[in-house]
Amino acid sequence: MSFPADSVGLVTPKKFSFEEPLELECDRILPRFDLMVETYGELNADQSNAILICHALSGHHHAAGYHHEDDKKPGWWDACIGPGKAIDTSKFFVVALNNIGGCSGSTGPISPNPENENRPYGPDFPLVTVRDWVKTQAMLSDRMGITQWYAVIGGSLGGMQALQWSVDYPDRLQKCVIIASTPKLSAQNIAFNEVARQSILSDPDFHNGRYLENDSYPKRGLILARMVGHITYLSEEAMKQKFGRDLKSGNFMYGFDVEFQVESYLRYQGEQFSRNFDANTYLIMTKALDYFDPSREYEQSLKKAMEHTQCKFLVVSFTTDWRFTPERSQEIVDALISNHKPVSYLDIDAEQGHDSFLFPIPLYVKSLRAFLGGQEHLKATPQEVV
Amino acid sequence: MSFPADSVGLVTPKKFSFEEPLELECDRILPRFDLMVETYGELNADQSNAILICHALSGHHHAAGYHHEDDKKPGWWDACIGPGKAIDTSKFFVVALNNIGGCSGSTGPISPNPENENRPYGPDFPLVTVRDWVKTQAMLSDRMGITQWYAVIGGSLGGMQALQWSVDYPDRLQKCVIIASTPKLSAQNIAFNEVARQSILSDPDFHNGRYLENDSYPKRGLILARMVGHITYLSEEAMKQKFGRDLKSGNFMYGFDVEFQVESYLRYQGEQFSRNFDANTYLIMTKALDYFDPSREYEQSLKKAMEHTQCKFLVVSFTTDWRFTPERSQEIVDALISNHKPVSYLDIDAEQGHDSFLFPIPLYVKSLRAFLGGQEHLKATPQEVV
Repeated sequence: MSFPADSVGLVTPKKFSFEEPLELECDRILPRFDLMVETYGELNADQSNAILICHALSGHHHAAGYHHEDDKKPGWWDACIGPGKAIDTSKFFVVALNNIGGCSGSTGPISPNPENENRPYGPDFPLVTVRDWVKTQAMLSDRMGITQWYAVIGGSLGGMQALQWSVDYPDRLQKCVIIASTPKLSAQNIAFNEVARQSILSDPDFHNGRYLENDSYPKRGLILARMVGHITYLSEEAMKQKFGRDLKSGNFMYGFDVEFQVESYLRYQGEQFSRNFDANTYLIMTKALDYFDPSREYEQSLKKAMEHTQCKFLVVSFTTDWRFTPERSQEIVDALISNHKPVSYLDIDAEQGHDSFLFPIPLYVKSLRAFLGGQEHLKATPQEVV
Repeated sequence: MSFPADSVGLVTPKKFSFEEPLELECDRILPRFDLMVETYGELNADQSNAILICHALSGHHHAAGYHHEDDKKPGWWDACIGPGKAIDTSKFFVVALNNIGGCSGSTGPISPNPENENRPYGPDFPLVTVRDWVKTQAMLSDRMGITQWYAVIGGSLGGMQALQWSVDYPDRLQKCVIIASTPKLSAQNIAFNEVARQSILSDPDFHNGRYLENDSYPKRGLILARMVGHITYLSEEAMKQKFGRDLKSGNFMYGFDVEFQVESYLRYQGEQFSRNFDANTYLIMTKALDYFDPSREYEQSLKKAMEHTQCKFLVVSFTTDWRFTPERSQEIVDALISNHKPVSYLDIDAEQGHDSFLFPIPLYVKSLRAFLGGQEHLKATPQEVV
C-alpha cells in the first residue's frame, strides 16, 4: 500500500436501499431505489461537519481515494478531497453518491425493474430531474442522521444540484458551492445535448433502449455523444495548446484514419467512455440538464427562486468555459445579490475550459478551502466581483 | 414569370468537360472531370469584368436566380448576386461552379468511375484539396477565355479558395474577397469535423462508402453530421433569440420526442440536408477544410505565402462567428499588412454567427459593392481596422 499521504486511501462504496415509493417530477413513481455512496473522513458528534458532493454528467460516488491497491487512478475529484486538501477529510465528513438514473450502482436503467419481472429497466426508467436527485439526497441525509449539511458542493450538473438544494431545503445547508454551472441551459447547450441524444437514439444497436435484452450495445452512438460532449468541455485554447494542428504521422495521409492528434484524442476518449457508461443513463443525464430551471416554479424569476435561501454561497466560473460561460454563473450571483444574500464569486483564469472545475487550479482550490474554512468573504482579488 | 426585378431570373447550368488527366495534391490522378457551372451577366469584350464565386461546404454552382419558374427558393447567394445587387450582374459577368468532389453535377463520388466499369466512385474518389479546386477553376478560366478575374470571392471554405487563388495565381485576379474564413482550421474546428465524419463513417448504412452499390444510404450519419455542423454555423445569441428555451408543446413531456424548439429545428435541418447531399462528398469537404493551410509550403509562414500576391483584398468577418472568429480573419489581414499589401478589413456587427456571410447585412453588402466598384479603400467606419 503506497497511496499519497494526502489521499483518503482505500475506500469501499456502500449501498443505501430505500424500500419506499419515490414520487418523481414526471409524475411517475419509482417503487424502490438504491443509492451507492462513498464517505471520507469522520462525522463529528453533532453531525455538523458533513459535506455533500454532487456529481456531474458522467460522475458517480467514487469521488476520492482508491477501490483497489493497484488502481491507477483515484476518484474523479481526488484533487480536492483528502486529508489537508481543499475539502479536508481530516476536518469534514464527505459524502459522495451516484444519483438515481446513473449506472454506477444506484438504481438506474441497468437495474432490475421489479414491475417487469426484474428485467433491466432500460428505456422504462423514468426521466429524472435535478429536483428528484436533490429529494433522494435529502432522504439519504435523513438516513445518515445529517439534519443540515455544512456544505453542498457541485460542478456543472453537480452545481445545479447544489443550487437546487439551497432552493428546496433552505434550512438544510449552511454553505453552497456552485462551480462552472448555470441557472438553466441555453438553446446552444440543449442543441449539443440533442446531437448527443440523436447519436444514441439513431444507433441501430440502441433497439429503442432495450439493447441489454437484445444482447447489443449502442457503442457507436455513445462514442459520438461523448466526442461532441468532449469538444464542449475543452476550451479552444486548451485544444490548441494540447494538439494544435499536429499530425499523427507528420504528413497528410489523404484518408479517414486518424491524421490530426486531436482526432486521435477524441476517438480515444469516446472509445474509453463507451466501455464504462450506459447509453440510457447518458440520455437521462442530458435530459436532466435540459430540464433544469429552478425559476420555472417561480414565475420564471431566478431572483424569486432564490429569495428564501438561507445559506452562504460561493459561485465559481472559469474564464475559458464556453459550455457554461462566466456570464451564466453571474446570473446566479446577480439573483443572490438582488436578494441581499451572502455570495462570493470568483471567475478563475484557467485554460482548461469547462473541465477546469476538475483541476486543482491554485486560486480555485484556495478559494474553496477558504470558503469552507469559514472565511466566506474571500480577500479581494482582481478577479473577484463580489 | 414573376421573378423579382433584381433577380437574374431563370438560369441554366452548363457542364464543362475536361478530358485530360488531373494530377491532385494527394498524388492521385483523376482521368477526366466535369465542372457544373452557372453564369450571370455578360462577359465584356476585353474579358475584364468576370467574377468567380467559390462555394462553401454544402454549396454548389447555383448561386443566384431560379432553375424553374415555380422554384420557391433562388440560388444560395441570390441576396448578393443580381442586377443592381452588391455583385452587380448588369456590370459583371459572374461565374459560379460546383467543385470536384461535390454532388451537384461536377465529377465527384456519385459520378461514374471510368477506371471501375463506370460504377460510382464512392469512397474511391480521391480526397481533393482547396489547391486542387483552384487548379480546376484556373482550367475553367482558360476554357472560358478569362485570363484574369476581376475578382474571386468566397465565404468560409469559399474564402479559402479565394485566398489560395491569390497565392497560386497572383497575376490572374485583380481583387480577392475573403469572407468569414480562416488561414487554417483550429484543433477545435478539426474536432467538430471529425465528429461529423465519424457520424457518417460509423453509420452501418455507410458500407465503407459503397452505399450506392448496396442500395443503401447513411442517412442517420448525415443527419448527425449536419446537426453538429449547424450548431457551429449559428451564434449562441442567434439561437437564443430564435429559440430560447421555448417548448414545442408548452410543457415538459419527459420523453425523447422533440421538446424544445431548437431540437425541432436541428432535426429538420439535418433531415432536409440528408435528402440532398452525398455522404462521401461531405467527408471530402470536411477533409478539404482540415487540410487547408497555405503556409505549409512556405515554412509555416502565412506572411511568406502571401508575399507574392498582387491583388487587392477585402477581408470580412462577423462579430458573432465562433466557427471562424474575427481573430482568424485578422491573421490574414496581419499577413497582408506585414507584406505591405492593399487590404481592407471589416468586422461586421451581425447576430447570425458564421452563417452571417449568406445574409444581406447592410454594411457588409455596402462594403462588398464599394470594393467591387473600385473604391477599395472604404470610408472609415468604427468597425474598420485597416
